[in-house]
Amino acid sequence: MIKKRIGIIGATGYTGSELVRILTNHPDIEITLITSESRAGELFSDVHPFLQGIADQTLVSINQIEEHELDLVFLALPHGVSMDFVKRVKDKSFKIIDLSGDFRLRSQAEYEEWYKTSHIYPEGIEKAVFGIPELYHDKIKEARLIANPGCFPTSAILGLAPLLKGKLIETDRIIVDSKTGVTGAGIKAKSTNMYSNVNDNFKAYGLKHHRHTIEIQGVLDELSGQETLIQFTPHLLPVDRGILTTIYARPTGEMDEAGLREIYAAFYENAPFVRLRKQEPAIKDVRGTNYCDLFVSYDKRTNMIIVISVIDNLIKGAAGQAVQNMNILFGLEETKGLNLIPLNP
Amino acid sequence: MIKKRIGIIGATGYTGSELVRILTNHPDIEITLITSESRAGELFSDVHPFLQGIADQTLVSINQIEEHELDLVFLALPHGVSMDFVKRVKDKSFKIIDLSGDFRLRSQAEYEEWYKTSHIYPEGIEKAVFGIPELYHDKIKEARLIANPGCFPTSAILGLAPLLKGKLIETDRIIVDSKTGVTGAGIKAKSTNMYSNVNDNFKAYGLKHHRHTIEIQGVLDELSGQETLIQFTPHLLPVDRGILTTIYARPTGEMDEAGLREIYAAFYENAPFVRLRKQEPAIKDVRGTNYCDLFVSYDKRTNMIIVISVIDNLIKGAAGQAVQNMNILFGLEETKGLNLIPLNP
Amino acid sequence: MIKKRIGIIGATGYTGSELVRILTNHPDIEITLITSESRAGELFSDVHPFLQGIADQTLVSINQIEEHELDLVFLALPHGVSMDFVKRVKDKSFKIIDLSGDFRLRSQAEYEEWYKTSHIYPEGIEKAVFGIPELYHDKIKEARLIANPGCFPTSAILGLAPLLKGKLIETDRIIVDSKTGVTGAGIKAKSTNMYSNVNDNFKAYGLKHHRHTIEIQGVLDELSGQETLIQFTPHLLPVDRGILTTIYARPTGEMDEAGLREIYAAFYENAPFVRLRKQEPAIKDVRGTNYCDLFVSYDKRTNMIIVISVIDNLIKGAAGQAVQNMNILFGLEETKGLNLIPLNP
Amino acid sequence: MIKKRIGIIGATGYTGSELVRILTNHPDIEITLITSESRAGELFSDVHPFLQGIADQTLVSINQIEEHELDLVFLALPHGVSMDFVKRVKDKSFKIIDLSGDFRLRSQAEYEEWYKTSHIYPEGIEKAVFGIPELYHDKIKEARLIANPGCFPTSAILGLAPLLKGKLIETDRIIVDSKTGVTGAGIKAKSTNMYSNVNDNFKAYGLKHHRHTIEIQGVLDELSGQETLIQFTPHLLPVDRGILTTIYARPTGEMDEAGLREIYAAFYENAPFVRLRKQEPAIKDVRGTNYCDLFVSYDKRTNMIIVISVIDNLIKGAAGQAVQNMNILFGLEETKGLNLIPLNP
Repeated sequence: MIKKRIGIIGATGYTGSELVRILTNHPDIEITLITSESRAGELFSDVHPFLQGIADQTLVSINQIEEHELDLVFLALPHGVSMDFVKRVKDKSFKIIDLSGDFRLRSQAEYEEWYKTSHIYPEGIEKAVFGIPELYHDKIKEARLIANPGCFPTSAILGLAPLLKGKLIETDRIIVDSKTGVTGAGIKAKSTNMYSNVNDNFKAYGLKHHRHTIEIQGVLDELSGQETLIQFTPHLLPVDRGILTTIYARPTGEMDEAGLREIYAAFYENAPFVRLRKQEPAIKDVRGTNYCDLFVSYDKRTNMIIVISVIDNLIKGAAGQAVQNMNILFGLEETKGLNLIPLNP
Repeated sequence: MIKKRIGIIGATGYTGSELVRILTNHPDIEITLITSESRAGELFSDVHPFLQGIADQTLVSINQIEEHELDLVFLALPHGVSMDFVKRVKDKSFKIIDLSGDFRLRSQAEYEEWYKTSHIYPEGIEKAVFGIPELYHDKIKEARLIANPGCFPTSAILGLAPLLKGKLIETDRIIVDSKTGVTGAGIKAKSTNMYSNVNDNFKAYGLKHHRHTIEIQGVLDELSGQETLIQFTPHLLPVDRGILTTIYARPTGEMDEAGLREIYAAFYENAPFVRLRKQEPAIKDVRGTNYCDLFVSYDKRTNMIIVISVIDNLIKGAAGQAVQNMNILFGLEETKGLNLIPLNP
Repeated sequence: MIKKRIGIIGATGYTGSELVRILTNHPDIEITLITSESRAGELFSDVHPFLQGIADQTLVSINQIEEHELDLVFLALPHGVSMDFVKRVKDKSFKIIDLSGDFRLRSQAEYEEWYKTSHIYPEGIEKAVFGIPELYHDKIKEARLIANPGCFPTSAILGLAPLLKGKLIETDRIIVDSKTGVTGAGIKAKSTNMYSNVNDNFKAYGLKHHRHTIEIQGVLDELSGQETLIQFTPHLLPVDRGILTTIYARPTGEMDEAGLREIYAAFYENAPFVRLRKQEPAIKDVRGTNYCDLFVSYDKRTNMIIVISVIDNLIKGAAGQAVQNMNILFGLEETKGLNLIPLNP
Repeated sequence: MIKKRIGIIGATGYTGSELVRILTNHPDIEITLITSESRAGELFSDVHPFLQGIADQTLVSINQIEEHELDLVFLALPHGVSMDFVKRVKDKSFKIIDLSGDFRLRSQAEYEEWYKTSHIYPEGIEKAVFGIPELYHDKIKEARLIANPGCFPTSAILGLAPLLKGKLIETDRIIVDSKTGVTGAGIKAKSTNMYSNVNDNFKAYGLKHHRHTIEIQGVLDELSGQETLIQFTPHLLPVDRGILTTIYARPTGEMDEAGLREIYAAFYENAPFVRLRKQEPAIKDVRGTNYCDLFVSYDKRTNMIIVISVIDNLIKGAAGQAVQNMNILFGLEETKGLNLIPLNP
């Protein structure tokens, strides 16, 4: 088989380095180019020294993509920058998996309300497929532009999908209480990700207004055919990677725990990366992997469903899910190159 | 002023060492004795070496309390052991502040249901006062036996009290999503508090059945005069100390954020240890202190109230609150010996 | 190629789970059995829940090895228990890689002095080969019993070998100041590995008498043909995995930094897992991998050589090095199954 | 007694907030002003929100010092900025305790060599007293300008002083292997103090050229009357605060451990903040306090002395030592306001 030629646009962030980490051992692709405007001419391992001897490619400017026949590019660019690129290459033949938020929402208006900036390529929003393979496998297969989901939305949506698809819960008051590792804030040093502000510490942030709220709600509306109201609260954990989301929802009808678990088992029967856990999962149980671990519980005393959902935000929440989407696009086995085993401890 | 004579029963745990840490600089008391059955004859600083040169008292057996005139004893004993002691000394004149869970619930039946063990001194349950000074100052003043509240309940109750006292929220579906540091599990080494099981990790535990659920519910029922249903979920943070509780509740009537804040400001006007914060508090903001920091918020989009409550579980959640109760019992200024400033970072 | 049949003796510890993590993706072997006396009958993933769906083999008693034709067994047993097993199977045909300390020293007398227990199988000491592939590749190839090196010795020996092999430093006063992650202390909960005793903390331990001192010294004596004196001080880091060793030594003759680096480059020319780093390496740079990263430096002002050596204690310091030894024993490529990329962050 | 009027110049860093934390409970002083150029007009607690309700003074510009009669100012300014200020106020009557490195070295030439910048006020270097009270109590008492020592030098010098004062060790090859918490790098966000670069990580830095080398050497030369050569290597720990220094030195004559301990006990007989520990101290044993804990050991096998020295870098290594110096200057008890008890855990 001829290896697929891949471009990674944006090399300096965590999604860039995770993509390289994963793709380096993928048997069916080759990384044709990695771009960086600020570090062009340097080695990838100069930017990420832990990859010395492993990924020593020279970084090039984004303009170099013209000189290569590419099958697919991953966009590891900030929100706002991605749409410029996508617009610019709209007539190219390569596929695009965009890891930013630029094409995840349902409409230009929604984007502009929640991202507080104008969208310069609304046609892209219409064409883009939201890349959660567990829900949209067939659409992904046919897409040219995939909006790779946000990290929080991945954890929340996979936790809630079976309930909403089956119209099993009240939709006006779903609590999504999420806790994330620090890498979710990106690789740039700032006060919020300084060691001494995070270590031995914990806090909530982005109350009421976090952008992932609307991303979650958009998918859940679509799945349920109803209008949902999500109360989403992110918190910052003193850990590098991992998201744990605790979900509270009230059933619309009779419920019991065994039945609830069967619903999830059936829903995720063919999902190789969703593990229904026997006990409450911890974020280290999925560290370094593409798994989403779920634990479902029903409290008879209060008549509430509690779902716990755990992912590695950089993998199932970003680069790993992107590779999973790539595998589907290329007609490869969904798990190719993703046989990652949790690093625990 | 003659110094009050204090006994600390149980020296080997965290509450014991925190009590000594705080009381060592308290101007109006003297620590007359510290007991330990397993370490009697050794120095307190042999058990807690960081106190070498600071607290070098010799530990004695509990039987030695007979030989001293004491004004008050703190019980830093495990659940189940405390009630034995309280029963045994029921005719003594000294006051008792019990840091265990043995006298916190409303009835023997409730205790036996949630603690899965029989209660040998139900009279104590009736006489005990639940020691949250912000709510029960006057009762505490007159009590002989104080049940010092649990750490999670302290954070949850202080976060919810103004809402329930004012009958401002629906009571059948209050979400209390708590995250605690590891010291809450005690000083004994076990799998759950091993470094590599906690570090860079995070998980929920005790879903649906944690004992603090009923302790919270008992107080909230009493405050609101209604029956409440609390969904309480604790999670384990990779931090030593601190609890952050995120509370979700739906208002019964009209609500807005400014009004909500005024309600809290009025309710805690005379509470020296409750700080209403301008922004979301972090657990390190109260580390090493007796503060409970609160942040209240109202989401118009979803019609939900979100309250964030933060304490140091070993201080406001245990030893500090105990000293606050002691000050009230002795007619001292409530803040005496508790002018602790957060250690941050 | 017929897959080699592997047994793992001892399943409950970290070395057991790391061996399974690594071997699960090794193309040329199959794990024929995993033993545990305390957990026989349970699944491997019951003991290590993060491996649910990945390693669900049923654990068996050690007696079951009689029923299988095995090519090789890894012993992931405590010191003292290993030698019993090795003695018992001395006439079997399978190869043995022992991850304990039982066969690492030069003589029964040395073992008994430093391990404070008698050695029941001194013949094994004579036959065993010390399994550092970078130094003893050819002997390993022919061995039946391999003593897999300790974690500290691996980091210290690889850092010092080029200097001692070349007789370039004074041997009476080599400082080996090591800092290790907590997993080095094993998987059993005890006071020393409790979260709150380790987190935000740091201390030295085992001053002057740590057993790895003599293991290091034995190899260095042999390499240099001289008697060495090592001052080895381990310290406990608040991290899960990783050892960083800082080595101080005085050159016997003229020295300069460029020349020093050439010596190391030449010495490790064919060592796929030794990376000579451009800058000071951090332990996360090798986390989850079989690399040993080295940084060498010469201080003209003080006439001292400083070498920094970094490994993942569970991989290059234990399970990874064991698999590397296995590959050599089986005539496979040394890096087979060990193409692990650092998990950073 | 009339309270002494104190100014704190520089409010935004950790030394500023630690000074306020300590001085807020000091009975004999009042904080007359706190300056900040970048945040003038805001509250101190806007800059350090954990001090809301505790330290709500309004920050003023440095020019405001003209309007106050001050007894003493603490300079919590960066290196280079401090000397400007000291020069400018050279004719004022208030005393100065400078927490920067500007006046710690022996000469302008030494400063310019190690700090790579010119010194604009060399007269200050001559007049300044190096503020380690355990060594220079009497000089401090009479000084106008005190150069408060660096954090690493404090730990190294207190660990070595008894040995060098007594000419008990070889001076050409003293190994000072230090490990520090992250706050030593200051409060500004940068790549080196980002959470994910520090957490679960560890590395050496500043090999051979760290400025504290010469600061240590200057004092040790003076104490010993000999020329010393210090090999100083700092490492970065994943902890907020604390320095642990491991020192290796060879005795010049006969040595034994008991005698060694007596030497230290005699030397520090009157030092209220030096604790000679019974076992190896951990950095959390002194967290939040002004203690320097020492542990001394002699290895007969190798004929080496090992000293372990532990401090809180922000307190004994900065703000606490500054307050100790202030107490001496004012003729107060050395421990006034410094009765801090370790926060552990």
